[in-house]
Amino acid sequence: MPSSDRDSQGDVFDVGLLSPVSVNEEQLVGDARIAAAMVEVEVALARASARAGIAPESAAAAISSALDGWQPDVAELARLAVAGGNPVIPLVAVLRGRVATVDPDAAVWVHRGATSQDIVDTALMLVATRALARIDAALDAAADGLVQLTERHRATPMAARTLTQQSTPTSFGLVAAGWLLGVSHARARLPRSLPVQLGGASGTLASFVELGDVASAMALPALLADELNLAAPSIPWHTRRGPVTELGDALTTVLDSLGVIATDVATMSRTEIGELSEPGGHGVGGSSAMPQKQNPVRSVLIRSAAQRAPALAAELHRSSATAGDQRPDGAWHAEWPTVRELLRLALGASALARELLTGLQVDADRMRENLERTGPLILSERLALALGPRIGAARVQEYIDRGTRGENLVALLATEVAADPSLADVDLAELLDPTRYLGAADALIDAARTAAAVLRRNEARS
Amino acid sequence: MPSSDRDSQGDVFDVGLLSPVSVNEEQLVGDARIAAAMVEVEVALARASARAGIAPESAAAAISSALDGWQPDVAELARLAVAGGNPVIPLVAVLRGRVATVDPDAAVWVHRGATSQDIVDTALMLVATRALARIDAALDAAADGLVQLTERHRATPMAARTLTQQSTPTSFGLVAAGWLLGVSHARARLPRSLPVQLGGASGTLASFVELGDVASAMALPALLADELNLAAPSIPWHTRRGPVTELGDALTTVLDSLGVIATDVATMSRTEIGELSEPGGHGVGGSSAMPQKQNPVRSVLIRSAAQRAPALAAELHRSSATAGDQRPDGAWHAEWPTVRELLRLALGASALARELLTGLQVDADRMRENLERTGPLILSERLALALGPRIGAARVQEYIDRGTRGENLVALLATEVAADPSLADVDLAELLDPTRYLGAADALIDAARTAAAVLRRNEARS
Amino acid sequence: MPSSDRDSQGDVFDVGLLSPVSVNEEQLVGDARIAAAMVEVEVALARASARAGIAPESAAAAISSALDGWQPDVAELARLAVAGGNPVIPLVAVLRGRVATVDPDAAVWVHRGATSQDIVDTALMLVATRALARIDAALDAAADGLVQLTERHRATPMAARTLTQQSTPTSFGLVAAGWLLGVSHARARLPRSLPVQLGGASGTLASFVELGDVASAMALPALLADELNLAAPSIPWHTRRGPVTELGDALTTVLDSLGVIATDVATMSRTEIGELSEPGGHGVGGSSAMPQKQNPVRSVLIRSAAQRAPALAAELHRSSATAGDQRPDGAWHAEWPTVRELLRLALGASALARELLTGLQVDADRMRENLERTGPLILSERLALALGPRIGAARVQEYIDRGTRGENLVALLATEVAADPSLADVDLAELLDPTRYLGAADALIDAARTAAAVLRRNEARS
Amino acid sequence: MPSSDRDSQGDVFDVGLLSPVSVNEEQLVGDARIAAAMVEVEVALARASARAGIAPESAAAAISSALDGWQPDVAELARLAVAGGNPVIPLVAVLRGRVATVDPDAAVWVHRGATSQDIVDTALMLVATRALARIDAALDAAADGLVQLTERHRATPMAARTLTQQSTPTSFGLVAAGWLLGVSHARARLPRSLPVQLGGASGTLASFVELGDVASAMALPALLADELNLAAPSIPWHTRRGPVTELGDALTTVLDSLGVIATDVATMSRTEIGELSEPGGHGVGGSSAMPQKQNPVRSVLIRSAAQRAPALAAELHRSSATAGDQRPDGAWHAEWPTVRELLRLALGASALARELLTGLQVDADRMRENLERTGPLILSERLALALGPRIGAARVQEYIDRGTRGENLVALLATEVAADPSLADVDLAELLDPTRYLGAADALIDAARTAAAVLRRNEARS
Repeated sequence: MPSSDRDSQGDVFDVGLLSPVSVNEEQLVGDARIAAAMVEVEVALARASARAGIAPESAAAAISSALDGWQPDVAELARLAVAGGNPVIPLVAVLRGRVATVDPDAAVWVHRGATSQDIVDTALMLVATRALARIDAALDAAADGLVQLTERHRATPMAARTLTQQSTPTSFGLVAAGWLLGVSHARARLPRSLPVQLGGASGTLASFVELGDVASAMALPALLADELNLAAPSIPWHTRRGPVTELGDALTTVLDSLGVIATDVATMSRTEIGELSEPGGHGVGGSSAMPQKQNPVRSVLIRSAAQRAPALAAELHRSSATAGDQRPDGAWHAEWPTVRELLRLALGASALARELLTGLQVDADRMRENLERTGPLILSERLALALGPRIGAARVQEYIDRGTRGENLVALLATEVAADPSLADVDLAELLDPTRYLGAADALIDAARTAAAVLRRNEARS
Repeated sequence: MPSSDRDSQGDVFDVGLLSPVSVNEEQLVGDARIAAAMVEVEVALARASARAGIAPESAAAAISSALDGWQPDVAELARLAVAGGNPVIPLVAVLRGRVATVDPDAAVWVHRGATSQDIVDTALMLVATRALARIDAALDAAADGLVQLTERHRATPMAARTLTQQSTPTSFGLVAAGWLLGVSHARARLPRSLPVQLGGASGTLASFVELGDVASAMALPALLADELNLAAPSIPWHTRRGPVTELGDALTTVLDSLGVIATDVATMSRTEIGELSEPGGHGVGGSSAMPQKQNPVRSVLIRSAAQRAPALAAELHRSSATAGDQRPDGAWHAEWPTVRELLRLALGASALARELLTGLQVDADRMRENLERTGPLILSERLALALGPRIGAARVQEYIDRGTRGENLVALLATEVAADPSLADVDLAELLDPTRYLGAADALIDAARTAAAVLRRNEARS
Repeated sequence: MPSSDRDSQGDVFDVGLLSPVSVNEEQLVGDARIAAAMVEVEVALARASARAGIAPESAAAAISSALDGWQPDVAELARLAVAGGNPVIPLVAVLRGRVATVDPDAAVWVHRGATSQDIVDTALMLVATRALARIDAALDAAADGLVQLTERHRATPMAARTLTQQSTPTSFGLVAAGWLLGVSHARARLPRSLPVQLGGASGTLASFVELGDVASAMALPALLADELNLAAPSIPWHTRRGPVTELGDALTTVLDSLGVIATDVATMSRTEIGELSEPGGHGVGGSSAMPQKQNPVRSVLIRSAAQRAPALAAELHRSSATAGDQRPDGAWHAEWPTVRELLRLALGASALARELLTGLQVDADRMRENLERTGPLILSERLALALGPRIGAARVQEYIDRGTRGENLVALLATEVAADPSLADVDLAELLDPTRYLGAADALIDAARTAAAVLRRNEARS
Repeated sequence: MPSSDRDSQGDVFDVGLLSPVSVNEEQLVGDARIAAAMVEVEVALARASARAGIAPESAAAAISSALDGWQPDVAELARLAVAGGNPVIPLVAVLRGRVATVDPDAAVWVHRGATSQDIVDTALMLVATRALARIDAALDAAADGLVQLTERHRATPMAARTLTQQSTPTSFGLVAAGWLLGVSHARARLPRSLPVQLGGASGTLASFVELGDVASAMALPALLADELNLAAPSIPWHTRRGPVTELGDALTTVLDSLGVIATDVATMSRTEIGELSEPGGHGVGGSSAMPQKQNPVRSVLIRSAAQRAPALAAELHRSSATAGDQRPDGAWHAEWPTVRELLRLALGASALARELLTGLQVDADRMRENLERTGPLILSERLALALGPRIGAARVQEYIDRGTRGENLVALLATEVAADPSLADVDLAELLDPTRYLGAADALIDAARTAAAVLRRNEARS
């Protein structure tokens, strides 16, 4: 890794050094892409205006020709954004200058009738749409990994744990099925399409009416949506921020579903539990101090992302709830970095989850070993249900208490059964076999897989 | 107001003294109702177990007879909840004792096979379902009020404001239409049904399989749901908390939609703006120090609720993202007071919003007066669009700058028009009439009303 | 537990059913105490006004006589609070009526010159002051418990864990010393005194100047503070909410310090780790379904509180940052339930922490057993440091890698040492003894204890 | 603004495009500076180790010579950070390589004995220390601006506003004095010094003991602190995150104090109020659509920052409360981007506040005009206090009610006074002059200035 010239790094704001969870996935939502999307929106607006009969065809053509695929100097743009409080004001000046070199008469048609919010909001929706496709694909692959885990471990018993203590047996297949359903629900909640924002200065479309008429102005948002492959809103949403909060809630729900998986993997890969381990290779999970360690690093990073997401989504709701006037005095600005950070976290965590879940190592022997650690006490509930009606609940509890204090519960029960002819039908070996107390685990796995498949089908269809 | 005996208030934990927004609406979600719902769930479980062939009919009958409509001493229950960390453990003991007086053999069938989480989660969903119906009804009435405002003020011009400054004209009808659509979207997002939770100790239904068989255990959640008029989940959601986070997100979205209305009402009723005022009467809005004041107290209280909601919803996501093991060590417990507080805020704010929006006073004269305060400058955008192509953008900007500095813009423009025969067709009076620059406000109102009606229809149908 | 009459529970808003962490500690901050504190503040204001020469002595005497220790009907007060948006307006009416029965002329002197915010803010500070004393005492006892743990387990080795994996050895005494220092810092940050709020309608003290003069008005806040044993602020803080946010930050820091302890206890008491267990007895930690379980219920409840606190403290900052005008339109109201809930969580969690830390069970054998589970690999860092310079870092890493893959690391090293005469001085047994690699644990324990003692001394002195 | 080559922007992650509030101030805390600080910490550790007698002087000299002021390729480093979950692992490899070219024997002494957390935590504290100095300087200048405003407008009356409604008169000097005291308190709360973190793999300093002895290991953190001009902690704070949460709380408190100023400026510069306006010039505050507008853009950006800060500080508390084990599995990682973002927001907002407060335009005429808008009713409180005892409270209230309904209150009172000889001493003109009802505003300004000066002096002294 060569050092680069210090001066050339003078502009370095954030390259992901403190965000390892998302650094490899940030390309889709970085500032360069946001700026490029703003240019795309301005071009699309010119084209849509021409289609609506509001702008001359020639202006739209010149704007397209001058700006299609053009990328502004984004660091410079960021600096110029301070004076007006948003990057569109300086961007428009640059774009008009560039268009003027192609066709001076067309320059005025750049951004004509629009307000900064139209461009920022629509560009963010465009970038989000592309990020969502990638998140969705990663979740799809992660879900495939989960289906495999579910099937491979249908019959792998393990100790369930509640409030940190072993409770009763379960199967790892059922645990994975729960993860699968969580991811499937989260995926199903991702917005299918995001809307363009177009309202002009105050959301009345007055400028477009002035340039055309009511009919063409009313047609314009849908035409813009068509140009950008986004949805058309019923009316401008400049101060009705549902599209933003729904996006935030959905991304957070994705991170919830991955966070709970990462939490379980981190716990189950603790040295003393050792039931799961992350896929290794290429120095993944190494330590700077302890050469023997293999850290569950993907789970750690996913957890760090999942922890941060809810506050970001809440920030979007706060902005939404105070989006007063026809453009609020701060709440809107607080949305921009927030929604982008949520996209980053979801992109990063979903990519790591795909790696994690398609390569997760399961140690079924260790699961069995841990399950047997609590001995027959892990079947206390079953004993109470099965023997309670036969010998009395109090007596069962007494045996369990003695077992908890270290006595040999199997021997105690064997003596009881031997002494009581009415218990001749009791098969203690079966009763105390943890793998015979998995309940409806198998049927629940089927139910979860069916539910996940239905969610996926509905998603594909919509 | 008589004083009550101090001793009898020893148990007073929270009667709403610090929560005026929700005090009048709390009946549906208070601790008494939560405790009653827990009893309901236990009764329903016994009935469902009998229907599934797991429990004897006679036990279910005895449990129903002993517990239907019975209300435990909730303060005592709260105190006893500390030892086990949840109120179900002491509740079950009380319920069994009560059932035993009716039928000693039935007592063991109270809570049989269930775990505390099954009861707490299902009871909260039951209480939430009832609260949602009331919230929905309040929002329906509020939406009716908004429809009236929208229609009554279709043609009421007012100054739009962006970043606190007057921008261009709009109509109050369009502002109200935006509020209406926000409320309509939020309503449409409220869950249509909430699921029961039933998984037994670790989510495998093993206890119910032990008592019956896999088929009866798998049938049980749907039977319980049927008893309680709730939905049946595909599998237990003990560590997959989507039902809780979706509820939280939806309630927060309701509060967002009301918060933005309250923010606008608060601003527009400022002494210096005076365009809106809250319905008065019965001392509403009075001050303890200033006898002349009429505060927009409903808006203030709604805003206080809307401010608090996002952090509560975020807490639910945080719990969801860390719901590890088969029951987590703290995250689940953090949900209970959080989801209830969200219900309270939404109940209170929606009730206040109904009052506010069915009685809001609109001062159209004051709107017109404020609109004229900026004079012709509020039409600067229009002047730029209309005259820019005729006399050049720079010249229009120069006039606007001079107007901003205090010169008479109308006179300046009149001189320009008079001096230039090519501008003979320019109707300055029309151009500078703010009521002629409302853009597509009317069509947008129609679009918003249509969208709101579609959302309402879909809701009713589902 | 008898059932109480359902009707009499109609007013039940919240008795702590969903907040087991705080139910036993709520007496100090419940609505009854808040209401009583408001009465106290009104009485103190009358007395202070008399001392300042603003109010007649006779009025102050009558007010004291009528209201000292009097407790209003708090549920009724809560309901009446809605119309004006705060409980002071109806309270003043009740208090004046009550005083009038003693001395009609004195009634007007109740609340005279004050505004609602003066009373609400000061009453909350009064209640907070009393709660802080109790929290401080609980933390003091918890710290004593930690000192004992630290000393008793100075020489108890255990495996340190980083990113869930065993890393190197440490001692449980050092872990406890870290907890102790955390609690000590948090305690030191608790405010020593909280200020009264007194500014009149808009923070100018104009009403008091009207009733007296500038000098008496300026003296009044300090006199009020003296009456209530609170601090006097330099100027009113109606829109400068530092006293509230500092309180919130300090309470959250207390909960942080307890949360990390609870997190460690929960982890270390996992069935598979089993190094710590909570003090039992009296059914604490029982389960409704699994008769053998002993849950770390105090840790679970402390964790649930610690999880919720940061969002509450953040809400106070949000209110502070938007406390505009001379009293804001919602932000102030959002503070009340928030600051009280934080007090509740800190009261409850500190009381549970005292129980937990004065009775925590430490299983030193299990710690040793777990420490040996990783075998000599837990000393990899030491091997690299000690042998790297002798045989080369690459060779040490090779041995560690082979050990990680299951080879006998001790045997490998023994062979190496035996084969190389230059390693004759290497004492492998010492090198691989985890209890000989505790670093400066002992000295660090001393340093932590000294720092904790200094923090405590400073606190006592101030 | 030239476009730059698209390819060269491939690495663009975040250059501040969506964060106009902080873009101009980010240099101190950007990723380049974080990476440089990490190198600085590694160099300082080598020097401190040599001073402690742990490392050879020659190694420290070689490391200094090879790395002093050297800047790694930060984008590459960010990418390589993913595998191990933090950037130190790849950084150490690079640094060792570079040192090896100077002195092969010295390479091993880079990072020797340290763990990644030692470097990341200390580097963040180093960067934070430098940012704090800049924030402090900006606040100092802002406070100077506030002192000027306070003095210049001691006698500038304006309408106080509570719950959006004009309440009683106040002075703008007093409002500014409240702002000043808020900023002064916030400044005083900024940490005077931040600690280095040094504990080795698990916080026992075992590696340094291995390399030296207990005494040298215990001396090392203070030597490292001395090298970096940071503070020495009593013991490592790897899982005791008070230094981070206190920093976060302090930064948020700064943003609170600026947020409330920005909120007031935004409100008071509303078109209809017009009492304040931001300093203009250089296109600051322009709009992309409305050529006449002058937006309070600094206030808007400060508000957007102040809104976001509390959730970030809360995230740090959440990490602190769950910093389990000897390094937690996600909570620590969540801190890094969070603390940096808080620094950015405070840097940006304090710089904007300095501009805002040293150039704020105050329109005293408009304040007077608005004050007179409510007419004599704004003195209702005074009338009640002054005339209540003379003619009865009910009669005063009756006049006020009639005034509220539009009757001429002055005339009504004049008639009353004229008709009642006992009121001959009542000077109605004085009584109804809003500038004569400023209470203790002047004395309060003095008190605030004194308190602010004391806070500043204490800060300077410490």
